[in-house]
Amino acid sequence: MSDAGVLGIRRATDADWPALWAIMEPVVRVGETYCWDTCLSEAQARTEWLAPADRTMCVFVAEETPGPGSVGAAVGAVVGTAQLHANRAGGGSHVANASFMVAGNAGGRGVGRLLARHVLAEAREQGYRAMQFNAVVETNTRAVRLWQSLGFRTLATAPGAFRHPAEGFVGLHIMFREL
Amino acid sequence: MSDAGVLGIRRATDADWPALWAIMEPVVRVGETYCWDTCLSEAQARTEWLAPADRTMCVFVAEETPGPGSVGAAVGAVVGTAQLHANRAGGGSHVANASFMVAGNAGGRGVGRLLARHVLAEAREQGYRAMQFNAVVETNTRAVRLWQSLGFRTLATAPGAFRHPAEGFVGLHIMFREL
Repeated sequence: MSDAGVLGIRRATDADWPALWAIMEPVVRVGETYCWDTCLSEAQARTEWLAPADRTMCVFVAEETPGPGSVGAAVGAVVGTAQLHANRAGGGSHVANASFMVAGNAGGRGVGRLLARHVLAEAREQGYRAMQFNAVVETNTRAVRLWQSLGFRTLATAPGAFRHPAEGFVGLHIMFREL
Repeated sequence: MSDAGVLGIRRATDADWPALWAIMEPVVRVGETYCWDTCLSEAQARTEWLAPADRTMCVFVAEETPGPGSVGAAVGAVVGTAQLHANRAGGGSHVANASFMVAGNAGGRGVGRLLARHVLAEAREQGYRAMQFNAVVETNTRAVRLWQSLGFRTLATAPGAFRHPAEGFVGLHIMFREL
């Protein structure tokens, strides 16, 4: 991510998939933060992230466009992605759920926070009354701190509910905030 | 359910679907206990309950077979059903999830408890380390008491996360027990 770049959020399109998969694949393979099979295929990942069967699903990308002082490619680079959808159907459909991924080489630059603020605003606009994260790995402290700073509280931690490849059995936080 | 009937549990087969739908449809339509669209079609319900795409899914039926002293049909009547599967994929796949439904005219006779005991034993056999219910409607007190009596504790209650057709916004319990 160039210092001169300008970060923006827009809806994802099918054309973004290769860039999204480049961000997702390392996250999937290492298996430290998401409850996904580490051998998930690209096709499965695409269905999982873009979820065409879920009519409530919105997918966003964080894109860096070259700033006025920057030199080089004029095309934006996708540096993060988020999905927003109803956490449950029917009587539970007024609570949103969201997931986030940031490119490994773009960490620590506020991409996750920008995506999260956008998704929270979008969820409010869509009429959701709350947002719930069902499975935040407790060792993913960067994510936990980000959600706390954005008003989420940990309702509970399911003990040992995640088998971390390095840390062994660790808890999964259920995090929640009203909108 | 005849007093002379003998209750047994077996795996569901495709041939059970009409009996399963007869149990499920009233539950779906009233929308008081499951986070499903109340207008769910039979085809969607079948996919939801039998979940052919989820390789971890096992579906059971509670069947009443005529007892030695009973008169009438020799064919068993399906009076309840349960599903057992991994609550999450990947690093979360050692925690089971299960769902249960009992025929309206078979309530209060221990069908749910029998199914639950069977599913807990099956989950242990399959190597799951815990079982989690993600969304137990807090006004579904019969279910809450049953799960408590079987060793589940409420980890947390997501406030107002379920819109009950009569009670308004009520909580969803996340319930958990080790196996």
